[in-house]
Amino acid sequence: MNAAAQSREPLRWTIQTQLPVAYEIVETPGLLDPANPELLRLPEGGSSTQVRLVVLDHSIDELYGERIRTYFDANSVPVSYLCMPGDEESKSIGHVLDVVTKLNEVGTNRLSSPPIVIGGGVLADVVGLAASLYRRGIPYIRVPTTLLGQVDVSVAAKTGINFGGYRNRLGSYSPPPRTLIDREFLATVPHRQIRNGMGEILKMALIKDLRLFELLEEHGADLVEARFQDTGGALLPSGIADEVIGRAIAGMAEELQPNLWEKDLQRSVDYGHSFSPLVEMRALPELLHGEAVAMECVFSAVLAAQRGLITGADLERISAATVRLGLRPSHPLFCDVDLLSEALADTVRHRDGRQNLPILTRIGAVCFLNDLSVAEIASAAGYMGRLLDPAPRPATPAVIG
Amino acid sequence: MNAAAQSREPLRWTIQTQLPVAYEIVETPGLLDPANPELLRLPEGGSSTQVRLVVLDHSIDELYGERIRTYFDANSVPVSYLCMPGDEESKSIGHVLDVVTKLNEVGTNRLSSPPIVIGGGVLADVVGLAASLYRRGIPYIRVPTTLLGQVDVSVAAKTGINFGGYRNRLGSYSPPPRTLIDREFLATVPHRQIRNGMGEILKMALIKDLRLFELLEEHGADLVEARFQDTGGALLPSGIADEVIGRAIAGMAEELQPNLWEKDLQRSVDYGHSFSPLVEMRALPELLHGEAVAMECVFSAVLAAQRGLITGADLERISAATVRLGLRPSHPLFCDVDLLSEALADTVRHRDGRQNLPILTRIGAVCFLNDLSVAEIASAAGYMGRLLDPAPRPATPAVIG
Ligand SMILES: [Zn+2]
Ligand SMILES: [Zn+2]
Repeated sequence: MNAAAQSREPLRWTIQTQLPVAYEIVETPGLLDPANPELLRLPEGGSSTQVRLVVLDHSIDELYGERIRTYFDANSVPVSYLCMPGDEESKSIGHVLDVVTKLNEVGTNRLSSPPIVIGGGVLADVVGLAASLYRRGIPYIRVPTTLLGQVDVSVAAKTGINFGGYRNRLGSYSPPPRTLIDREFLATVPHRQIRNGMGEILKMALIKDLRLFELLEEHGADLVEARFQDTGGALLPSGIADEVIGRAIAGMAEELQPNLWEKDLQRSVDYGHSFSPLVEMRALPELLHGEAVAMECVFSAVLAAQRGLITGADLERISAATVRLGLRPSHPLFCDVDLLSEALADTVRHRDGRQNLPILTRIGAVCFLNDLSVAEIASAAGYMGRLLDPAPRPATPAVIG
Repeated sequence: MNAAAQSREPLRWTIQTQLPVAYEIVETPGLLDPANPELLRLPEGGSSTQVRLVVLDHSIDELYGERIRTYFDANSVPVSYLCMPGDEESKSIGHVLDVVTKLNEVGTNRLSSPPIVIGGGVLADVVGLAASLYRRGIPYIRVPTTLLGQVDVSVAAKTGINFGGYRNRLGSYSPPPRTLIDREFLATVPHRQIRNGMGEILKMALIKDLRLFELLEEHGADLVEARFQDTGGALLPSGIADEVIGRAIAGMAEELQPNLWEKDLQRSVDYGHSFSPLVEMRALPELLHGEAVAMECVFSAVLAAQRGLITGADLERISAATVRLGLRPSHPLFCDVDLLSEALADTVRHRDGRQNLPILTRIGAVCFLNDLSVAEIASAAGYMGRLLDPAPRPATPAVIG
């Protein structure tokens, strides 16, 4: 350093401020009824006469496209539509830029003509990221149409796309000011997609809600069968579908609100999300997100049982509940020790050098591990190998632990 | 809506929280002296032994590459380098993804090995956006090496890239926790780049700092000539360079802190930034950002004089100061009424339907217009046409107004 520079105190400026964030998730039955104003309500109140961009995934366009067009026409709102694929492989930068190009065409302004996204979790992630980048962030309205979208993505602030073989490698925290939930959309969702959402509900039950777990044990299979629709008491007692969705959303909201930007990297909602991201990416397009999450729910329960944190009976109960939901408890990639170790290594980078691995202490509660060993992973992977075989039921980990 | 749904109150969940944001701009002479620890200091304190990604623009690599490598080697910090072009046309999604790919290769984790960007404003924008997206946001360290970077980009929270022919169409608000400023970098910056930064300093002076404007009038030409380096009193009285940079940064920090996310779309720092973005994009690669901003500083002063908000003498003073800084006061695109109208229309979309046009009420103060007419633009464009001609000096707008 030269003498002149040392002769005085270096200058320093500090900027300190806070970004207030508020958003709401609103249940609104009959969303596409032209008389229902919720879909047009702007975050700041009032309505807009400007052209709105409405992004649909292909299956929503096929099933609801006419009703959606009728809704906006009946309300005299000019709309430009964009239809996109909704599979995990479409969570790409290319699709984000397609949305941006369309926003340019429509001439979307900064605040008062927020785009609307009606579709599954993938579409919400892609359009959410596009909106969060456009003019450095514009509001958008989210209408999740899948179970996973309604109970998980709906509450989260996250957007994201896959890149370089990693899941959600790029993204942002940018919740839409309004998310609208209409359970009627689930009536047309394939059963496999319902089970996919059940994977995240199972996770939520395991980490914090024994009552929710019991509801899944008792009614989970029927909820899948009825696609969460009211059956007039035939399959399901009335109110069960609402209670399950309500508990899942409320649990998620409770966990996220104090830690929206994940400044605390010890997150119980990461249960089922430490090994599964890489498994899901490697298995593409075979596994859906919630399917991979459910497998890790079981895998983590095996780890817990091996340590004696939960009983073998609890593990069997978790595994049985998973199977009853129609979800596979295991997969060959969950038997691959090298892959599981690689997945954990990337998760450790994501958690800034620590494992912070949520692990059950009972059904409905977690603690965090930071000393999981390769030997434990290998032992649990062996157990997962025996779960691949549909019968006979494997020995409990008390035996293998 | 079906009856069952209407029979109970729809559910609603609200999430409310705040994101605290703090960052600092630190002057640190002798930044590349291996004994100076500032460049290695982590935002949270402590230091890192992990591989760091260091991104340089080509000119910095050429001029300082050896010293930079010596610095990290001497401090035994393993580094992976990425060199990129720093021109405005490189503010592209492709370059953002290059940085992301490199972060993947390096295995950058979430918090404790922030990438370092040493270069001009374009590089800061590109790497800043990549960091803000990577794992949904990782910290980074910014070392601006140009005058524009040091007095303007250094304080701002913004990142951005151009897309679809629009400047900064995609971006984020994600300030690096630490920005380090070493005026010695300016010694090797081309004079044109110094003048480019002067465009933003001129803007800051006009909107809020008469003393800064007077310093520019008196010493601006010599500051450009000396590239803000101490001349031992030969060209510049000692302390002048520090005072000009310090006032520019402090003014910017004062304006940004209460409105970091631009929730208030009436921003005096938008002076010079309402018409120039499109002019700059259309003129690429002819005009640098600060050059276009300086032209709009004059253009807006013409608008102010036409309305009688400032005197013709003030306008002449502003125009003369601009010329003395070596900046052109006009350009054929600032005489193109159609283009200027199109630019304003996009700015109005960006300001959510309002012009919110900062306009001088004297040198050092602004008000906001929302009723600027095409006739006024046309009249000012005509004046700008006469400014294209180097001599004789055009009539003051009192005559044309
Ligand atoms: Zn998930
Ligand atoms: Zn600028």
